[in-house]
Order: sequence, then C-alpha cells, then structure tokens
Amino acid sequence: MEILLKFRNEREWEQFHNPKDLALAINVEAGELLELFLWKNPEEVDVKKIKEELADVFAFAFLLAEKYELDVKQIITDKMMLNAEKYPVEKAKGTAKKYNEL
Amino acid sequence: MEILLKFRNEREWEQFHNPKDLALAINVEAGELLELFLWKNPEEVDVKKIKEELADVFAFAFLLAEKYELDVKQIITDKMMLNAEKYPVEKAKGTAKKYNEL
Amino acid sequence: MEILLKFRNEREWEQFHNPKDLALAINVEAGELLELFLWKNPEEVDVKKIKEELADVFAFAFLLAEKYELDVKQIITDKMMLNAEKYPVEKAKGTAKKYNEL
Amino acid sequence: MEILLKFRNEREWEQFHNPKDLALAINVEAGELLELFLWKNPEEVDVKKIKEELADVFAFAFLLAEKYELDVKQIITDKMMLNAEKYPVEKAKGTAKKYNEL
Repeated sequence: MEILLKFRNEREWEQFHNPKDLALAINVEAGELLELFLWKNPEEVDVKKIKEELADVFAFAFLLAEKYELDVKQIITDKMMLNAEKYPVEKAKGTAKKYNEL
Repeated sequence: MEILLKFRNEREWEQFHNPKDLALAINVEAGELLELFLWKNPEEVDVKKIKEELADVFAFAFLLAEKYELDVKQIITDKMMLNAEKYPVEKAKGTAKKYNEL
Repeated sequence: MEILLKFRNEREWEQFHNPKDLALAINVEAGELLELFLWKNPEEVDVKKIKEELADVFAFAFLLAEKYELDVKQIITDKMMLNAEKYPVEKAKGTAKKYNEL
Repeated sequence: MEILLKFRNEREWEQFHNPKDLALAINVEAGELLELFLWKNPEEVDVKKIKEELADVFAFAFLLAEKYELDVKQIITDKMMLNAEKYPVEKAKGTAKKYNEL
C-alpha cells in the first residue's frame, strides 16, 4: 500500500483518482485480465501476464479502499460472514448454485 | 486469505474455482461495484455497499492469486516497477495521459 | 450480420465462439470501450476510438445473439416491456433510482 | 431504436445518459450477462435470462451510438475492414491467436 501511494503521489495522480474513476479502472483492468483467458483453456494462459494484470486489479482495488479508509482484511471478513449466512455449509456444499436457488 | 480458503473448502467449492472462472468472477464483481456509481456523482454512493462489492473483488482476486501461488505484495511491487518505467515521474506528473501518449 | 458471419467463417473461427467465450469477449470489449473514458470528462474522449470499440461490442453481441438464434429487435422490445413495468413513467420520470428504490 | 428513445424520453432519463455513464452501463450489463455463465458449462445456461441481459447490453450500446449519431451498421463494417487487415484469412484461419502473435 505504501508503494502504491508513493507511486501515485510522486506523479500527482490523486486528483484523477476519484472513487468513480477508480471503480472504472478496476473494471478496465479486470477486462484485461479476462482477455488473457479468451478463447483458451485455463492451462494455455501466460502466467507472467496474469501476474501483471492481476497486480493492476489489486492496485486499483487497494487505492479505492484507501479512498474510503477501509481496512481490506476487515471488509473481506465482514463479507465472508454475510456469505456464510447466504451459503450455509449444509446447503452450499459441492454446488455452484446461487443463494437464491439453493 | 485463511478465512477465504476455509470458507471455500468447507463448501467444497474448489472444484468450480478454475482460473478462468475466477477471472470471470472478478469481472462480475467489478461490474457490481461499478453499478453502485452508475448515473451518480461519487459522493452519492452508498459506502456500505461499496465495502461489500469491493470485498468480493478482493476475495476472488486473492483466490486467483492462490491458484497460481502468487505473492500479492510481490506482484504489485513488480508491476509498480514496470509502471515506473512506463510512467517516469518527470513525464507523468500531473497528467492522466496513457504511457504511449506521453 | 452477414458481414460478421462471413468474416468469422472465412477464418474458421466458429470453433472458438462458444457462448461463454462470446460473453467473455463482450466484457473484454466493453472494458476497452470504458478505458477510453477513464480519468476523463466525456467531451475529452476520442470519438474515432469509440467507434472502433463500440463496433467490437456490437460485433460480439450480434455473434452471441446468432448462437441462440435470437432476433435482436425482438429481445430488446421484450426487455423494454419488462422495464416499463419495473419503471412506470409516473414513478421513474426524472429520477435515476433503481426500480427497487422507487 | 425508436422504442429505446421513446422509453428514455418518456422517463426524462436523457439527463443521466452522458456517454461516460452509458459506457459504464454497458459494462454493468455485460457483467450481468457474464454472471449467467459463471461456474457453468455453456449448455447449462438459462437462455431466457440471456435474452434479457443481452437485450440490456444492446440497449445501452444503441443509446451510446445515438449520442454520437453513429450508424451502427457503418461502424461495424468499418471495424471489420480494419480487422480484415489485422487478421488476413491466410494467417488467421483456424487459430485464435491475437494479431500481434500471428
């Protein structure tokens, strides 16, 4: 996180990093990550490129978290607790169904 | 990360979590995050919902990293070093231009 | 549509165009379209590039419609009728709220 | 297209439909379309839902085209001609490689 903020601040990019554009950036990078898998089986994919595109997704996700002063570990833990209610082990085990179809 | 894996393993969901579908999931969640900003100014957005959708983006991004045994801190640091070459401070300062337009 | 199919068939690409990858492709192209707007006001965007990226979105959307033998005009008309129920004029006029918040 | 514009104008939604938010909307809808395929084989997908989500992608793509007064048939034809140069039949036949890898 420190590296990200230093990189951003040295370039005076905070002015562009409003939350809406950061959410856009996450989508753009997620799309570039997805492109690596397009028309392919998972095992054909170039892992070096995955590292790069996945790093971009993480970078903008962390920058958006920083905007709202969110603790990433905390929001994931909170969400997992919500999901545990939506997807109780006994119902969700071994099925990929959505919670409203369980 | 441990919480994520425990959650996944209790539900025996690893079978569905091939890398391609995880990349899909990141895009789906990124789209849900983006929807919160649709037709809105950034300040109108519901932060509680942002926490939830951003947590989902992180969750699947961490699960994809786990698939390839990637060290998240490492891949971000590596990518920042690549970006530092593409976007040298003296050129990129205060501009949102893409590296190929600098 | 004919042009699209001729282009695809001459290259023998139908084998790659399963519906799931076509849905991926739509997302990838939608992300490239979105990138044109990143960190920008709408009026700063390069319209020539928008034409190209929007054309790609349409191309894969038409190819996915073709896979399921869907009549594009028909599915849009059907969806508009569903939306008209979700968003009755008297409630939805002049507001960007989602139907479940109206 | 007429149906789309009538629907939009009756609800006075043009005020929200700036090009940037329309590009966002295309991504949001593309994400919802993609979600239908998540963790699934193509043949397991609910075609009725595909019709609805694909219709939404088309609807916002047409509305964005209308903003820039683009002729959809024309931009697709133009793009196909560009693609025909990038992907000449003799090189691209039967391969899913990107043009810069051909």
